[in-house]
Amino acid sequence: MMDSIRIGLIGWGTVGCGMLQTLRENAKEIQARVGVRMDVVRVADLDLDSPRPVSVDPHLLTRSAQDILDDPSIHIVVELIGGLEPARSFIMKALEKGKHVVTANKALLAHHGNEIFAQAAKCGRSVGFEASVAGGIPLLKAIREGLSANRLDTLFGILNGTANYILTRMTEDGLPFAQALAEAQRHGYAEADPSLDVDGIDTAHKLAIASAMSFGTSIRLDKVYVEGIRDIDLLDVQFASEFGYRLKLLAIARNTNGLVELRVHPTLIPERHVLASVRGAYNAVHIHGNAVGNIMLYGLGAGMLPTGSAVVADLVDLARDMTLGIVHRVPPLGFLPEYSSEMPVKPMDDVVTRYYFRFSAVDRPGVLSKISGVLGANQISIAAVIQKGREVEGAVPIVMLTHEAVEKDVRRSLEAIDRLDIVRGPTKLLRIEDRTDNAVASA
Amino acid sequence: MMDSIRIGLIGWGTVGCGMLQTLRENAKEIQARVGVRMDVVRVADLDLDSPRPVSVDPHLLTRSAQDILDDPSIHIVVELIGGLEPARSFIMKALEKGKHVVTANKALLAHHGNEIFAQAAKCGRSVGFEASVAGGIPLLKAIREGLSANRLDTLFGILNGTANYILTRMTEDGLPFAQALAEAQRHGYAEADPSLDVDGIDTAHKLAIASAMSFGTSIRLDKVYVEGIRDIDLLDVQFASEFGYRLKLLAIARNTNGLVELRVHPTLIPERHVLASVRGAYNAVHIHGNAVGNIMLYGLGAGMLPTGSAVVADLVDLARDMTLGIVHRVPPLGFLPEYSSEMPVKPMDDVVTRYYFRFSAVDRPGVLSKISGVLGANQISIAAVIQKGREVEGAVPIVMLTHEAVEKDVRRSLEAIDRLDIVRGPTKLLRIEDRTDNAVASA
Repeated sequence: MMDSIRIGLIGWGTVGCGMLQTLRENAKEIQARVGVRMDVVRVADLDLDSPRPVSVDPHLLTRSAQDILDDPSIHIVVELIGGLEPARSFIMKALEKGKHVVTANKALLAHHGNEIFAQAAKCGRSVGFEASVAGGIPLLKAIREGLSANRLDTLFGILNGTANYILTRMTEDGLPFAQALAEAQRHGYAEADPSLDVDGIDTAHKLAIASAMSFGTSIRLDKVYVEGIRDIDLLDVQFASEFGYRLKLLAIARNTNGLVELRVHPTLIPERHVLASVRGAYNAVHIHGNAVGNIMLYGLGAGMLPTGSAVVADLVDLARDMTLGIVHRVPPLGFLPEYSSEMPVKPMDDVVTRYYFRFSAVDRPGVLSKISGVLGANQISIAAVIQKGREVEGAVPIVMLTHEAVEKDVRRSLEAIDRLDIVRGPTKLLRIEDRTDNAVASA
Repeated sequence: MMDSIRIGLIGWGTVGCGMLQTLRENAKEIQARVGVRMDVVRVADLDLDSPRPVSVDPHLLTRSAQDILDDPSIHIVVELIGGLEPARSFIMKALEKGKHVVTANKALLAHHGNEIFAQAAKCGRSVGFEASVAGGIPLLKAIREGLSANRLDTLFGILNGTANYILTRMTEDGLPFAQALAEAQRHGYAEADPSLDVDGIDTAHKLAIASAMSFGTSIRLDKVYVEGIRDIDLLDVQFASEFGYRLKLLAIARNTNGLVELRVHPTLIPERHVLASVRGAYNAVHIHGNAVGNIMLYGLGAGMLPTGSAVVADLVDLARDMTLGIVHRVPPLGFLPEYSSEMPVKPMDDVVTRYYFRFSAVDRPGVLSKISGVLGANQISIAAVIQKGREVEGAVPIVMLTHEAVEKDVRRSLEAIDRLDIVRGPTKLLRIEDRTDNAVASA
């Protein structure tokens, strides 16, 4: 039996520091769980000079990741540099050299996960990536193992803490988007370039991974419909509240008889839904399975220590396999590759959901009738309307919630409506998710 | 490699039916995850005649559990009869005969878990018991594996759906306890004899198991302080709301530098806390770890299919081990027995928390001063007071919330206060948990 597991870390950044600190601070607990020591024996980073919250013995440091890949004594390579290259090459090389890999790199897995998992299978090595989705929340383990008895049909959630922080500030403090973003940046929740977070791209990466694992299919990032929160108007957050909804950037995956929906967009959810109470930088994921019913997992989706917690959980899992001399106990995506099927993804045009529209129309008799006429002609039926006399630049907002409608009918209607002479600006469209209602326990 | 795993089921009741249905309905998904078939080859129950929601091939049925224990072709025995005996003997015998065991029996594990796990270690066999705590929520897997990087210091939650259903109906519909209980019984949420649920015993069983796993100690049911909800007065639910709290039957485990608190009692939690939004028959557990921060898991804690989901997840876990020819990959309580330590449990007298008191006092000047005088003399300081002129049988309710105080000081004070001639009846005491506040994301 091995008495210590030797780890090489590539990427001495925030998450790397979280992993190092967790391994050090909880060394006793971790050894009590696995029976062996976990030793970080080499740390590579291009920048060895910037101050870090967690220090490393200078003898272990190197500027060259190759030093780790070439070290035959290293059992596990932890890749925490992020991005596509050179992360991808490092991981492929590590597997080829017979090392297990742990990574938090959602962008890489969303783009190249299928290829990386195939390489791992070929090389007889494992890839752990719990940290890549929902940070500290043990979501992937729950999907892959805890809920393994189920046919999972729905997964939706808040997977980006930055976007959720911004929307929370807009909702609770009435800040417009730009100001809420600036606050997020000031508190370190958002990067100088916030595109990945606010444009929904990071959420899409995570959804691509978690949905593949939920439904037993391969990862298809290119099939995820993505819309971010950059254009969210405070007015719509406020109208949403008036109707009893909260606005969240939601990742939605749904499997209806083998046809999959994959979408990320700002979404109204009922304020009494448990996801509506997820505030600030927290993440939460709601899953529905045919046996378990509704499940929700909630926690910090980012940050040095929460993400470090997930990285180290993967290391513990690997250590538990390694001490028994086994590998591939659980397939990376939960399903054995020979059983994994390619599921068709529903085009966004065919998605059926409820909608929120805000029209900017002139304040004149007959306006409502014209707009609802166009909607009716396109099979879109109205569930609720608010019209308020706040005239801005010659137009009043008219807000409508629809019953379920087909996306392409909605698109066609809004194009027609926006061409009407009574309409003063482009209509705002948001989607509503209240089938999520079943997640609220009803008596 | 084995091509099928042979399962014997003892107990063809609700959960047994849930397991059978899940295995049947999701056979394809389960085989795609583990690569082998899972076959239930024998089902034992004393009663083979009552109608069941899920049928069994009559050839598989037997009235004798012994038939299953004696069948050398059976790999896994699933015990779902509940209670202490004969469940305990069946499990001990199954292990001795070289079979793995899966059980949902929290009462048994809370009482005899240590002995059963020792037997499993001796026999080189596994015991799966995910279904014993929080039903379908993969809580034990999260604690034992998903959060394995952490020193966990706090676990608290709603672990009994029946009690939560009753409290939800009291809170939302203004029903008194007896009527809410009757409703729970009418809807099948409560048994004819509801003691295990409403007196907090079932919650204590689950807390004993989950806390041992969280802290790396053995199971000590006898150390759990237990108070149920049978004496909850609707008036207190309503006063709690006025102060911004919801009343929940909470299981609380806290490890402060190796000194453990284990208690189950009705508890006021802030209404904006995520646990406050857990309604009806749902369960939810909040965990705090030194790396991951706050985590919450939410779902159905009981019911045929949710519990069946957890039983089958254990079967899948076992199958994944068995196909690789390994055992004991993860210790039953998460920590290797040789590292598990016996932690002292803090006596209830020494617990420090905040309190809610409702005094029944005569409506006369000086009353408030007398009561607060006694409290002050016992180092109990008052955070808020409501006195309302609703005189009932010559007394008015005076409600106070305290700052943190020591349980024994509180007990001593209330004894003194209840002897005052201005006091008309025994004071109602409830505890407040708002350190839980840190579970609410703050901006």
